[in-house]
Amino acid sequence: MRIDILTLFPEMFSIFNHSIIGRALEKGLIEINSHNIREFSLNKHKKVDDYPYGGGAGMVMTPQPIVDCIKATKKLNRGKVIFLGPRGKTFNQEIAKNLSKEKELIFLCGHYEGIDERVYNYIDLEISLGDFILTGGEIAAIPIIDSISRMVPGVLAVEESYTEESFYSGLLEYPQYTRPEEFEGLKVPEVLLSGHHENIRKWRRKQSLILTKTKRADLFSKINLTKEDIKLINEDNINKR
Amino acid sequence: MRIDILTLFPEMFSIFNHSIIGRALEKGLIEINSHNIREFSLNKHKKVDDYPYGGGAGMVMTPQPIVDCIKATKKLNRGKVIFLGPRGKTFNQEIAKNLSKEKELIFLCGHYEGIDERVYNYIDLEISLGDFILTGGEIAAIPIIDSISRMVPGVLAVEESYTEESFYSGLLEYPQYTRPEEFEGLKVPEVLLSGHHENIRKWRRKQSLILTKTKRADLFSKINLTKEDIKLINEDNINKR
Repeated sequence: MRIDILTLFPEMFSIFNHSIIGRALEKGLIEINSHNIREFSLNKHKKVDDYPYGGGAGMVMTPQPIVDCIKATKKLNRGKVIFLGPRGKTFNQEIAKNLSKEKELIFLCGHYEGIDERVYNYIDLEISLGDFILTGGEIAAIPIIDSISRMVPGVLAVEESYTEESFYSGLLEYPQYTRPEEFEGLKVPEVLLSGHHENIRKWRRKQSLILTKTKRADLFSKINLTKEDIKLINEDNINKR
Repeated sequence: MRIDILTLFPEMFSIFNHSIIGRALEKGLIEINSHNIREFSLNKHKKVDDYPYGGGAGMVMTPQPIVDCIKATKKLNRGKVIFLGPRGKTFNQEIAKNLSKEKELIFLCGHYEGIDERVYNYIDLEISLGDFILTGGEIAAIPIIDSISRMVPGVLAVEESYTEESFYSGLLEYPQYTRPEEFEGLKVPEVLLSGHHENIRKWRRKQSLILTKTKRADLFSKINLTKEDIKLINEDNINKR
């Protein structure tokens, strides 16, 4: 996948040199290019913002540098132009999954009080990271690109398979335990040490159901429960079995 | 505000050296310290993960290095220990506002398939960035810390006042325009050039209401509309006024 990022702070994206995405970049599974919007400014001082018409606090990004940067990038990348902004649909795993199938994507990061409204004519899709305010679009682009990139085929190693992760099945993931068996008086549940695969599967399913019901009733209400799920939830105490 | 981050990738947080947060760090309004969990591992190879009990894909972070890192950090920082994870309440502007009033905060970033469940005994609060999966907790910590930090008094300059921003009043922000008056045939709305403050205020309020109603019906439904709001929404065409 080829990703082009249009930003005033291209150096922020060196964050992708770490961890799993860094490995995918090295392998050439993903290519991330960041472009400095400022370099496209025709203003002699390379200015990229100006006062808002009609008054008010803050500065607004002028259309010319952004639009010229978009046009130049489109010669290299035929993907959708995605703007990180508050009017967009809230990002979720489904959007991540769909965008991970694209071959090319362009991300536009706004800054200051926002972008000139006319830039919207050059944008294909707006995505919001969530209902909170950030210092700039870069900070929203980072988790969104991370989430999309990790689902590009080959990026996660087989052993990092994401099919049992939280949200993938609409349930929160079951509790995980690793060595030691006892840590500061806290023990690993016996069933996990039993080697009895069917009991382990049932215990994990039950824990996922209970966690989701308790912590995320909104997700739980959307799940089609199986007969086994209902039976598991209604058991008083799995340990008595 | 003092922030301590417990992570396997402390170098990722150099991202805060940029932009508004970078300025706040320089001014000493915020202090961010990252601690490498790996350095607390008592394992001779500094291992921090192991296979999950009961089988399954991926590796789980062992409790010892994390808990020792938490204990050491608590000697320096008396704030809440916040874990970035999927079971937490979804982060929003209200959580950001409340946490921005704290003097000290500790963020714990998980990685791989998750943390050993017993670590939850040492955590005060879990926050989720949203319903999507990331390669690690660091990527969630970045926007959360950014959003909290920018509301610490003094971080935003007066002219960057956030009282008119999206979400602050429960409405999306009105469209912003800056120079030039005409860009590639697209003009700035006349009212913004009129100098008539009351008309500008009304136009902006109307645009905010319409945008929120169209793009974010969920937010719109929570707003207590004033008489003026209802009148503005029901006008067919503001330009005819």
